[in-house]
Amino acid sequence: MDWQAEIRTAAHRTEGYLVKTPAMVSHGFGFSFPIELKFEQMQHTGSFKPRGAFNTLLSEGAPEAGVVAASGGNHGAAVAFAAKKLGHNARIYVPEVAGSAKISLIEALGADLQVVPGKYADAMVQAQAWEAETGARQVHAYDTIATVAGQGSLANEWQDQGLTADTLFIAVGGGGLIAGAAAWFGGNKKIIAVEPTTSCALHTALEQGGPVDVEVSGVAVNALGAKRIGQICFDLAVKTGIQSVLVSNDAILKAQNLLWLAHRQLVEPSGAAALAALTSGAYVPEPGEKVAVLVCGANVDPDPLH
Amino acid sequence: MDWQAEIRTAAHRTEGYLVKTPAMVSHGFGFSFPIELKFEQMQHTGSFKPRGAFNTLLSEGAPEAGVVAASGGNHGAAVAFAAKKLGHNARIYVPEVAGSAKISLIEALGADLQVVPGKYADAMVQAQAWEAETGARQVHAYDTIATVAGQGSLANEWQDQGLTADTLFIAVGGGGLIAGAAAWFGGNKKIIAVEPTTSCALHTALEQGGPVDVEVSGVAVNALGAKRIGQICFDLAVKTGIQSVLVSNDAILKAQNLLWLAHRQLVEPSGAAALAALTSGAYVPEPGEKVAVLVCGANVDPDPLH
Repeated sequence: MDWQAEIRTAAHRTEGYLVKTPAMVSHGFGFSFPIELKFEQMQHTGSFKPRGAFNTLLSEGAPEAGVVAASGGNHGAAVAFAAKKLGHNARIYVPEVAGSAKISLIEALGADLQVVPGKYADAMVQAQAWEAETGARQVHAYDTIATVAGQGSLANEWQDQGLTADTLFIAVGGGGLIAGAAAWFGGNKKIIAVEPTTSCALHTALEQGGPVDVEVSGVAVNALGAKRIGQICFDLAVKTGIQSVLVSNDAILKAQNLLWLAHRQLVEPSGAAALAALTSGAYVPEPGEKVAVLVCGANVDPDPLH
Repeated sequence: MDWQAEIRTAAHRTEGYLVKTPAMVSHGFGFSFPIELKFEQMQHTGSFKPRGAFNTLLSEGAPEAGVVAASGGNHGAAVAFAAKKLGHNARIYVPEVAGSAKISLIEALGADLQVVPGKYADAMVQAQAWEAETGARQVHAYDTIATVAGQGSLANEWQDQGLTADTLFIAVGGGGLIAGAAAWFGGNKKIIAVEPTTSCALHTALEQGGPVDVEVSGVAVNALGAKRIGQICFDLAVKTGIQSVLVSNDAILKAQNLLWLAHRQLVEPSGAAALAALTSGAYVPEPGEKVAVLVCGANVDPDPLH
């Protein structure tokens, strides 16, 4: 499969629908080396998710029954946003743990919102039932080619913005975002998958030789709490040599605080998880190793302005 | 006076001490036209003020008695930060209206903080007394060549980042930031001075033919609440044809909210004031007129992470 071509097509297809989010070099975290940052939380709906959502809907369209998605919250908001923009009805299933910031965001976007007990996997069961019942187009959060190629447009864009790093740090839930980056760079950069110790589906899959169910909890569970890593992500992780790093919930909250202190970026815990790999010392770069961190979401609960 | 040379020198002098803050094109505010944004609130200490503070201290040095500044809060934090970096003691006078976010920031930077009753002008009286008493180096918030040239480095940087706008919107308190921009662009771009209706020292000065004292209040008073516009700013405003636009406090708060909704940027009211000129309809661009908005501060009270 020619991932680079797929991603270039996704980037062209979604042009005009997405924010080209800014990149920056930071010396703000007390290290002797700079960190390249990309602020993808400035994307529409506050996370990277519209990339995959727009790519899916623009390439596949939607039937009369509209679209359906299951989500910890960010993907649901993105699908609601894209569906509204493209004139489709959207039914979004989220678990209670999505939290009020994400739930009110999806409501404000006019979607038919269904809050279900449990976690992301429980929302997925219901979304699949709705798909089967109505024929609505399922927009998967991470494990389809269209979604991964859409998220991959971020890596393409970052490279065009002059990314120089050898090593990229990307937070992982179901793995769509990191799969997109691995697909784009194809092993030409070292990619570090950062997961919370309390929800580490990729880490476990790499240890056990394939995707398996894991328990999920913690401060970033409404974004990184996928029970099982996507197969596309797992395959790309093995093929391109993605390395896994785990961070504690405390380390994530500390990194969230540091992003505010250093650059006044208020992000959700998942949005700070990748940075936590460095600021916690879980990963120590080699001398001269150039690093970059993707900041990927800012739907914080409580929403600071409501 | 060769302002461009002065600003280029400031930019070189301060290199390595400042964040090169990102610029972006936004379609996120519901207009038919794009808005170029620069996110200067990502600067050290959460506002543009370190540019002037570093340029002043690096060019003029400081005596044994250290440095002193009066500030609504942001300039004080910047002087405290720069002084600490350069090994000087700093005594910072702020009015009570500075608010807890700015006061705790200055304290955390290790400065000798003096909170005085009243507003910015009251803090200035005490800072001048301290300067006279001890010989400390006064770092003025807006009305010296070194400060204006330092802030002007922002305009230089933005141009280097590919700024294409015809018209720039910049919030005005004492006028150091807009003076720097006017000094850099020298009439080659239309510059709109945005002030709250409740603190509009430049607007009043332009009406009355020179700087005069005004009353100050409102949601942005701890950043834009200068009682009298700087003479340097006033002279540059007249010379380069800066235009004045006023915005209400409600319009400022709405723009603050829109920055969060569109791009997850949590800024202080003054940081959203320039955007308010557009989002409130106070300024309506001509067809084809390209606009840019400077986002300049994010020391919000209450601090979202404390």
